[in-house]
Amino acid sequence: MLGRIDHVGVAVEEMDAALELYRDALGLPLAHREVVEEQGVDAALLDVGEGHVELLAPLGPDTPVGKYLQRRGPGLHHVAYAVADIDAELDRLRGAGLRLIDETPRTGIRNSRVAFVHPGALGGVLTEIVEPAAGH
Amino acid sequence: MLGRIDHVGVAVEEMDAALELYRDALGLPLAHREVVEEQGVDAALLDVGEGHVELLAPLGPDTPVGKYLQRRGPGLHHVAYAVADIDAELDRLRGAGLRLIDETPRTGIRNSRVAFVHPGALGGVLTEIVEPAAGH
Repeated sequence: MLGRIDHVGVAVEEMDAALELYRDALGLPLAHREVVEEQGVDAALLDVGEGHVELLAPLGPDTPVGKYLQRRGPGLHHVAYAVADIDAELDRLRGAGLRLIDETPRTGIRNSRVAFVHPGALGGVLTEIVEPAAGH
Repeated sequence: MLGRIDHVGVAVEEMDAALELYRDALGLPLAHREVVEEQGVDAALLDVGEGHVELLAPLGPDTPVGKYLQRRGPGLHHVAYAVADIDAELDRLRGAGLRLIDETPRTGIRNSRVAFVHPGALGGVLTEIVEPAAGH
């Protein structure tokens, strides 16, 4: 079961300019910033209610977000739903016939456990499920 | 101040197929469905926590969502943040120098009051603020 919208991921060309918009103009508090080498991104989480905006700046043009920017330009990249038990949820989604990118969870930002459903399975929407680490 | 992520808007080619994915495969309860003639869409709200997924099927090719589908294909269309006082929030965003699509609020789905910020002001992200009607 999907618990809530955990975050929207936004692909950005340049993090400082994006923080000026989201932190300074929209007024969202910066909660966390982390380079996730495995995913090739400099990521920032800004709080909005219980959820977040996740800004994603690519570490290079050959990273997934770098390629996304070349293909689509900056903008909404994915949506993530919080789940209480990611293993059970992956089983459920697999059972519903949805094509997964990650058959098993991997470590995401702030020590969460995450997995992605293929955008082709959900009408072009790259969809993540996330089991936040304790305390988040 | 932005209170929480109220919903993500998803542009879909065909509502029945989209409901099979979001209601039946993902398991999100269908909360509301409404034709919003002014915006040229058949819209469905599915609950996820306090928020929603808003599926948007165009009423024709010359509607905003119809044109979006031709230009970008189906997928994430916008993100909406709930606010307690949309008039005050519009003033704040205008004061922060953000280009608005709607200078004053208009009526959205389920009698909410809504306004859109121009995607060019927020790194390509079409952004909505929404003051839900009482009871929602």
